[in-house]
Parts: sequence; C-alpha cells; structure tokens
Amino acid sequence: MIKVVVFGSGNVATHLTKVFYKTNGINLVQVYARKKTNFLTKKNIPFTNNLSAIKKADMYILSISDDAISDFSNNLPLKNGFLVHTSGSVAMTNLNNRFNRGVFYPLQTISKNKKLNFKKVPICLEAEKNSDLKLLNKLAKLISTKVYTINSEQRKSLHVSAVFVNNFTNHLYKIASDICKERDVPFDILKPLILETAKKIKKISPKEAQTGPAKRNDKNTIEAHLKMLNDEQKTIYKILTKSIQNE
Amino acid sequence: MIKVVVFGSGNVATHLTKVFYKTNGINLVQVYARKKTNFLTKKNIPFTNNLSAIKKADMYILSISDDAISDFSNNLPLKNGFLVHTSGSVAMTNLNNRFNRGVFYPLQTISKNKKLNFKKVPICLEAEKNSDLKLLNKLAKLISTKVYTINSEQRKSLHVSAVFVNNFTNHLYKIASDICKERDVPFDILKPLILETAKKIKKISPKEAQTGPAKRNDKNTIEAHLKMLNDEQKTIYKILTKSIQNE
Repeated sequence: MIKVVVFGSGNVATHLTKVFYKTNGINLVQVYARKKTNFLTKKNIPFTNNLSAIKKADMYILSISDDAISDFSNNLPLKNGFLVHTSGSVAMTNLNNRFNRGVFYPLQTISKNKKLNFKKVPICLEAEKNSDLKLLNKLAKLISTKVYTINSEQRKSLHVSAVFVNNFTNHLYKIASDICKERDVPFDILKPLILETAKKIKKISPKEAQTGPAKRNDKNTIEAHLKMLNDEQKTIYKILTKSIQNE
Repeated sequence: MIKVVVFGSGNVATHLTKVFYKTNGINLVQVYARKKTNFLTKKNIPFTNNLSAIKKADMYILSISDDAISDFSNNLPLKNGFLVHTSGSVAMTNLNNRFNRGVFYPLQTISKNKKLNFKKVPICLEAEKNSDLKLLNKLAKLISTKVYTINSEQRKSLHVSAVFVNNFTNHLYKIASDICKERDVPFDILKPLILETAKKIKKISPKEAQTGPAKRNDKNTIEAHLKMLNDEQKTIYKILTKSIQNE
C-alpha cells in the first residue's frame, strides 16, 4: 500500500483524490484543503484544514495553483518526506530542499465536473532520488497505462506545446463558431471535421496530414476567405497561412 | 434508383465513387476521369475518358478542382441535365446556366487512402429547383445521416471555418510536434490531450471550454513560454493569447 496525502481542492486535486480513493494498492490517508467537499464527506475520507495535523505518508502531493507551490512547501510544517507537485510549468527545484522532491504531472485537460478515465491520461514523472522515482512510477502505473519519466526542462516544453494543442486549438474552434453564428450556420456541421482532424494525427504526422488553401497556395480561395473575416480573424488567418507556407 | 455519373478521380471523387457503388438505391452509371483506377477495373464500373460518350443520368456530379469547375461545365458536351459540384468554396452559379444547378458538398477531411465512414460525414446541399433539391436530399440521405441544406454564402462561411478548425488546428499540432522534437520529448504524450480537446466541445461551447494561461492572464507562465519559442512560434503565441484575452 502506498500512503498518500493530497493537498488541494482544485480540478486536478479533486480528480486525483477520486482515483486514489478507488484504486487498490493506494491508501489515501488524508486530504488537506480549506473546505471539505461533498465527495470527501460522502466517502468518509480523512480530511483536515489544519497544516499541523498532517498525517504521515509515503508521499505528499501538492496539487495547488502554480504560484503558491514554492511558498506552500517552504511553510509546510513537516520536517522531511517525499513531496511532489502536479504542475506542468513549475520546476521541481521550486519545492523546498529539505524535502525529497518530485513531480507528478498528469497531462490532460481536466474539468471538475467531467468524468475522467485516468487509465489513458499520460502522467509525467520526475524525482531527485532514484528510489523516489520508483515509488512514483509504482503509484502512476496503478492509475494510468501511460507513464513517462520527463525532466523539468522537457516538462516545460510539453507545457507550452499543450497550450498550442489545447488552449490555442480551442480558440480556433471558438473563432469558427463565431463565423458560423454570424451567418446563421449550425456549428454542429463542423464537429465531425474537428474530431477527424484530431484523430488523423494518430496515424500520420501533422506535417503529412496538412491540406487546404495555404498548403496548396491557392491565392483565390485565400483572398475570398480574407474578405469574410473581421480584422482580428484576418490577422490570425494571415499569420497561420504564412507559417504553413514556410514549412 | 438514382442514376449518377461522377466526373473526377481526386480524393472526394474516389470516396464518392466507392460509396455510390456500394449503396442500394444508387446506380453509378459511369465514371469520367483521365485514367481508369484499379477500383473501377476491379468492380467493373463503366468508365470513360471521352466527354462525348457520357451516359444519361439523373445527376452529373463534378468532383474536380475548384478552379476547373466553371470551364468544365461550360465545355461539357451535354445539352442539359442536373449538374452539381462538390466544392466548399465555389458558388453554385459558377456552373453553366444551361444546366439545372446544385451543390453536394461533403464537409470532411478526406484522404485518398484512408477509409471513410460516410454515414457520419455532414453533406451540405444546395439546388436552384425545389425538385432537384429533393432528389439531392434523397441521394445524400442514402449515404449519410447528417444532411443540411445550405446556401452558397453559408457554404463559404463553413469553408473558411473549416480552414480554422482543420488546416490551422493541424498546423498548431505541427508546431507542438516541432517543440517536442527539439527537446527530445515524445509527441505521443500530447495525443490524448489533442483528442480530449476535440471531444470536449461536443458537450460544451469552445468559449466555456477555454482554460490556460491566456484565459487566466498568468503573466509569469506566458513570459516563461515565450522564452522557449522561436520567432515565428512567438508571433503566433502572442496573437492567439491576445485574441483569447479579447473575449
């Protein structure tokens, strides 16, 4: 049994709490947060909002906002232990060095009220000590089939890449939905295309998958498209078209 | 039985030929192209490369490159009949007006060698005459469950929207794969996130689905990200971040 304490009550903390609670081989000995959630009450999971009452565990998992990680680890009234955070953009060394330090970063878009199948969520691990990495690996493999060891620099690259494929991609969906709304076209017509575009790169690389007027340098179509867009949309269209053509 | 003749041998023509051939209620009376494909030979589908030998049909489907549609329809040695094209960006009126005109636009990313389940491909229809629209509808519903009637202006909006959610989104995948490659991180780690981002908007709008440093205006993370990018990536990152923040 791996004994873990989870700190936090955000999206990631909530999902981790749920999956740790239900997984054999993991003992969720305590959750620390400001307020007790319904889930903790319902499942009778040991809870505290008092940092001086933290129980002993094999691993302390800090799932709080990026900016708070460093201070929180400095002020945590524990003498030592294995402390990990769950952030994509914070270096492992931002944790106070009186701890054995590590990272447990689940790379997925996580919404609080949406069910998540953790088995398919890539988990990126890092630890200073080899024995800690082994323990992290054991924990991660109990909940996911996709476990990677990644250093802090690589994790930062993944985090910025994730912004491109998640936040920025979602914003392109938003622009398309605006264009459709303005012309009274149901955005639903585009959903199969959106899904297929995402699925296509499972088999072939994004470079091979590229098609369309930018790739073909079809100037007539590009001109016609630009005429339909507002200034902001035009700027984005031009820059992405140029970037595709620079390939 | 709806009798159709297909003109063309590109991606769309190839997939249409296959689905028309195998669908009950559709009689693929002939395919016109420059060269006979293996599929046509194997299935013994009537083929011609001679425009003077086109057979009589209820519908002539022009699935050729956008730029060629107008000239081809002008020079086609048929006196009349119901002629449709399959393009997202060409107006119906670009077809010669001695024909009854229409559009049969399947909105999906179509690769020649990838199997396509037409049942889920949205098909956007337009026709000048009501009776022709009925016939188009009948044909479309035999191969797909997602059939829409859309005028030429709306179809153009869909086409530019499709560039955003398909070509531009795929380019963001490409940028992410470049960043990963440069830092020796497997791009595969991002694939579940890519798929989840596409699936998320089935249930909630792209506006509601947005998260990340731009949305939160997390300046530290944005600064750290920009430092990792090359000039072109930086430009794209800044413009999309600003556009998210303008919401």
